[in-house]
Amino acid sequence: MHFTSERHDDGVIEREFLSGDVPGILWTPASASEPVPLVLLGHPGGLRRMYPRLLARARRSVASGFAAATIELPGGGDRPALPDLEQARAELRRAVAAGERPTDEVIDRLVLPLVDRAVPEWQALLDALLELPAIGGPVGYSGGIIAIGVRLAAMEPRIAAAGLFAGSFVPRAIIEQAREVTIPLHVLLQWDDVDNDRQLALDLFDAFGSTEKTLHANMGGHTGVPQFAGEDAAVFFERHLR
Amino acid sequence: MHFTSERHDDGVIEREFLSGDVPGILWTPASASEPVPLVLLGHPGGLRRMYPRLLARARRSVASGFAAATIELPGGGDRPALPDLEQARAELRRAVAAGERPTDEVIDRLVLPLVDRAVPEWQALLDALLELPAIGGPVGYSGGIIAIGVRLAAMEPRIAAAGLFAGSFVPRAIIEQAREVTIPLHVLLQWDDVDNDRQLALDLFDAFGSTEKTLHANMGGHTGVPQFAGEDAAVFFERHLR
Repeated sequence: MHFTSERHDDGVIEREFLSGDVPGILWTPASASEPVPLVLLGHPGGLRRMYPRLLARARRSVASGFAAATIELPGGGDRPALPDLEQARAELRRAVAAGERPTDEVIDRLVLPLVDRAVPEWQALLDALLELPAIGGPVGYSGGIIAIGVRLAAMEPRIAAAGLFAGSFVPRAIIEQAREVTIPLHVLLQWDDVDNDRQLALDLFDAFGSTEKTLHANMGGHTGVPQFAGEDAAVFFERHLR
Repeated sequence: MHFTSERHDDGVIEREFLSGDVPGILWTPASASEPVPLVLLGHPGGLRRMYPRLLARARRSVASGFAAATIELPGGGDRPALPDLEQARAELRRAVAAGERPTDEVIDRLVLPLVDRAVPEWQALLDALLELPAIGGPVGYSGGIIAIGVRLAAMEPRIAAAGLFAGSFVPRAIIEQAREVTIPLHVLLQWDDVDNDRQLALDLFDAFGSTEKTLHANMGGHTGVPQFAGEDAAVFFERHLR
């Protein structure tokens, strides 16, 4: 991992980096005197496009005294396109636009290869970040793509708590894997997200094996998560990472 | 309305009263210098049995600077028994104990007469409380029986926000009435409450006409609402009643 830029702004140090050939961003509190907990910020791909929202989420983590970090998804942003995945995404969008439920086969073809590629990259990021003197732990995973968060929560013992955004399609195999998850979970669902499969999100929440799991469902559509819902998620991480 | 007792404890004034022949309890902050908002505390009946939990909820309201009040339900506690209602309750409990879903007919026979009797009593309570110089408004309704909360939220314009506990059976007619509700709602559901009908609770949440409605689902069974869920509800009322 090597840093390619550094910027100080309003108590936050923002550093861009390359983890292998995967670009990413790390935010740390400028004032921390001890190693801090870490929140991994998931997103749907396209760091540049997602930057304003990621920065807002990172600032909230830093306000809690945590570091926050993210990396570009496989096939996202400036990374090499993945044609099979683009093909599956186009088919899924066609189905949603036609008001149809995408088939399990298309959902699998879109999401499973992405999870298979992304999860080892997040784990490599974790290896590198936890060697930095500024970062201690515990570690949380926050956001989407929810299938990536589920796989990480199920198999990566360094993830202590997860705040997941149930806003994307979930393969049945990932719902099965959710039964293995036992860490505290905070799941956000936009109830009136017309492009999401609400029942699948409820099935996923039901499947989680965790004894502490909370579902927060709100109105406002896919991108209209109310501000108070973000504050609730911050309180969840403060409860579990501090 | 006339008060029958008064007790000061740790910044809270607790007064028992009779509203007509309906017994109730009012909690107010000892230190308030202006008329305060009011939270009506719903419950499943049996003021004496529910007292410890009601007191804890009232203390949370007073900590937010609000008054809190409750009355005994028709047929509850020391009030005259309602034999038809007892009969329906026994039938419903038999069905639940046998692992069956109670019929819509039994749910209607248990809940609708209770709602029809209780709602005017809560409205009379509101008339009386809002005449007290210590109580200003706005007014929230908090808790169960959820069907009473729905009817009040739909038809009583003085209720500005409701935090509802989706832990009891809901007649279809009440789900229809939920479409008329437009105030901000915070709905609590115990996901693993084995004696509750989860799908009915989700149907009810879906039916509400409010543009701001939030569902918080947690684990812990019917009476195991996590402490943080109570705090989330308090934050909801602070946002809407202050």
